[in-house]
Amino acid sequence: MNLPDATVAGMRKTNDLFCSTAIGSRDMSVLDHVYTADAHILPPGAEMIGGMPAIKNFWLQAVTGLDVKGATLATVSAEAVGDDVVEIGRAELTLADGRKVPIKYVVHWKFEETAWKWHTDIWNLNQ
Amino acid sequence: MNLPDATVAGMRKTNDLFCSTAIGSRDMSVLDHVYTADAHILPPGAEMIGGMPAIKNFWLQAVTGLDVKGATLATVSAEAVGDDVVEIGRAELTLADGRKVPIKYVVHWKFEETAWKWHTDIWNLNQ
Repeated sequence: MNLPDATVAGMRKTNDLFCSTAIGSRDMSVLDHVYTADAHILPPGAEMIGGMPAIKNFWLQAVTGLDVKGATLATVSAEAVGDDVVEIGRAELTLADGRKVPIKYVVHWKFEETAWKWHTDIWNLNQ
Repeated sequence: MNLPDATVAGMRKTNDLFCSTAIGSRDMSVLDHVYTADAHILPPGAEMIGGMPAIKNFWLQAVTGLDVKGATLATVSAEAVGDDVVEIGRAELTLADGRKVPIKYVVHWKFEETAWKWHTDIWNLNQ
């Protein structure tokens, strides 16, 4: 990884907000600080979704529908590309019944206003 | 899209090689011209795969296992980021029984030697 420490710290802060607040507390208002204003998500089993209201709705339905109790995110590789970052990572969801769901993802990060945010977010399941 | 015409043409050439030769003719040697030397693919239902021999093996197994007869790729958005391109796209596989499988993908493109190539390739199914 060829990223400045401040970038790594900024990315970690954003990921922590997603895990603790969007997933942990099911408070989707925090997604304003996680996704760029014109972000897109590409979830498995659904069409591509753009726009903050639709993204918030997707995550609320996903977290309540699957009864997700927690999430972890771990960077596998992150490359500075121009002003942006392209990251490959692993996620793990913990469901209410204790089951763990391993996920891998690619996020195109942009620095927007004062924070590093997810601009394009695509993932799939390993199994 | 903010890409030079030559970049768009180079990307189309690479996509055509993948569809016509890797999928259409099941000739995986062409993947040397599609993926960068240190590319990674993140297929649904499998772990991340790195390295050309493993990528070639994955595609051969996938195309023969599913009996894929054809593929189309269409760019939804493509953004120049530094020297690279981040693309969101739609793919459609045609199976031997005529069934169509809609797929969406994100590809991180790099210009390597003389061609635009896929450096990171992740996709999932819409359904």
